[in-house]
Amino acid sequence: MTRSPLLLGLDAGGSGTKWTLVRAGQSVASGRTAPFTAALLGTPAGDAALAELGAALPGRPDAAHAGVPGLSAGSDRAAQVAAALAGTLRVDAAHLSLEGDLDLAYRSHLSPGAGVLLYAGTGSVAYHVGRAGEVVRAGGRGYRIGDDGAGFSLGRAALRVLTAAIDRGQEPDSPLAREVRAVTGGTDWDTLRSFTYGDPGASAVARLAPAVSRAAEAGDAEASHLIEEAAQSLAELARRVQEQAGPLPVTATGGALRSPLLAAALGRALPGVNVQQRDHAEAAARYAGAQFGG
Amino acid sequence: MTRSPLLLGLDAGGSGTKWTLVRAGQSVASGRTAPFTAALLGTPAGDAALAELGAALPGRPDAAHAGVPGLSAGSDRAAQVAAALAGTLRVDAAHLSLEGDLDLAYRSHLSPGAGVLLYAGTGSVAYHVGRAGEVVRAGGRGYRIGDDGAGFSLGRAALRVLTAAIDRGQEPDSPLAREVRAVTGGTDWDTLRSFTYGDPGASAVARLAPAVSRAAEAGDAEASHLIEEAAQSLAELARRVQEQAGPLPVTATGGALRSPLLAAALGRALPGVNVQQRDHAEAAARYAGAQFGG
Repeated sequence: MTRSPLLLGLDAGGSGTKWTLVRAGQSVASGRTAPFTAALLGTPAGDAALAELGAALPGRPDAAHAGVPGLSAGSDRAAQVAAALAGTLRVDAAHLSLEGDLDLAYRSHLSPGAGVLLYAGTGSVAYHVGRAGEVVRAGGRGYRIGDDGAGFSLGRAALRVLTAAIDRGQEPDSPLAREVRAVTGGTDWDTLRSFTYGDPGASAVARLAPAVSRAAEAGDAEASHLIEEAAQSLAELARRVQEQAGPLPVTATGGALRSPLLAAALGRALPGVNVQQRDHAEAAARYAGAQFGG
Repeated sequence: MTRSPLLLGLDAGGSGTKWTLVRAGQSVASGRTAPFTAALLGTPAGDAALAELGAALPGRPDAAHAGVPGLSAGSDRAAQVAAALAGTLRVDAAHLSLEGDLDLAYRSHLSPGAGVLLYAGTGSVAYHVGRAGEVVRAGGRGYRIGDDGAGFSLGRAALRVLTAAIDRGQEPDSPLAREVRAVTGGTDWDTLRSFTYGDPGASAVARLAPAVSRAAEAGDAEASHLIEEAAQSLAELARRVQEQAGPLPVTATGGALRSPLLAAALGRALPGVNVQQRDHAEAAARYAGAQFGG
């Protein structure tokens, strides 16, 4: 009896690369290494991230599949990333495939044509892949314009509540202010400014989203209102895709929806939505098996 | 008869340093050099900016006054900046004074205690200086949180209108879309993303504010709505300061209010507001004269 092949799945992204190894249908190892995206390919940071990934894997995979931000399957850039990954992972290039991170996220939850994936992490996007591979999307415009309802926008909204109080000469001391203070170290403007505009800047703001959720759980009316607004914004993204792709069911996922209050609010704003969390790296490994055997 | 002293005024800021020389009550020369702020002091960029300023002045001033972002008069940092400026400008340190950029802006339009200054450029802030020098302010929280109603926020709002249209599968072709395209080079998402998140990033978004104004003038209903919203946001900042400082008259200034439509909308949102534009560097020079003789 031949041993089952070892399958690697990668969920690459700007904040880290999640990897999972699957054998005979079981996850046998997983981990997280430095960020790797198509944009990092060929840079010192990208080279270091690839080397770290290669060193972290406890075995040589027989096949691999990866989701990488900003990549279209079949593009020149995808071929370059595939070659780099095949070399690092010592995987036969014929047993390695790539797609965009949103395509992998969609694949992890839904079959082509089956629904709309609503993702809410630091940013937000609604995404549909049709039976013929056609894509309809809404949102995902980044923190300077959009990403409404997700982590950055919740953190931004909390900071707006506090700075409006400061404008009115009030010392913020609501549950929301206390939860924010626990993250930022203070709710005076000098501290909030350093938190918002210092290093690491924009991604720090998203770290306030759980504080909003905790404040709402503690009964803070403004925090509860921000959660409701976020849910409405996310529902709107899903509806924009439904307007294009048809009245398909919506599956919602992403770190922001680990907040039970936001998930519940989304259920009210978008009746019938199915909130679920899955390991996209593990889904990638299973897909490698489906494609290349395993 | 002794010749009247030569007075230098500086309006320093993150996007450039404006200088004006005044003699006998008349502006005799003015110009613009590289950005200089307190944060740049001692950095290569700050040293280069100071050297450029020193070389640009056609004469050695007898006295000078400067408004510098993020500086409190009398602070250690202010003393360091004053020493650096005195050396570069070859001005007797006893004839050089400094204050924060918002204090200079207030001084350029209003006497202490006389009113509320509403500033709308790339960012927005409402500012009051009382008779005893006490300050009340609202807004000025930067583009990641606030600055509602000013350049960045108008540009952001225009980009949100266009990306919402893209989400709905529409090819943006309104007057607003055409005006934005004239600045960005395109209204497809790849072009808008590069414009928004590339270099110079956030400040580029503010460059779209005049496009919103032109589109509103061309009859674009969405652009007109954005202008009205911006005016309401600016009025709200002024009202927050009035709540603290009393029902004082409001003077509004800044590049965003060079749009006649925004200025008119602000007049409706905040009846009695006085919109005026003044050269803050020239006001600084005149203040140097008032303090040190001239």
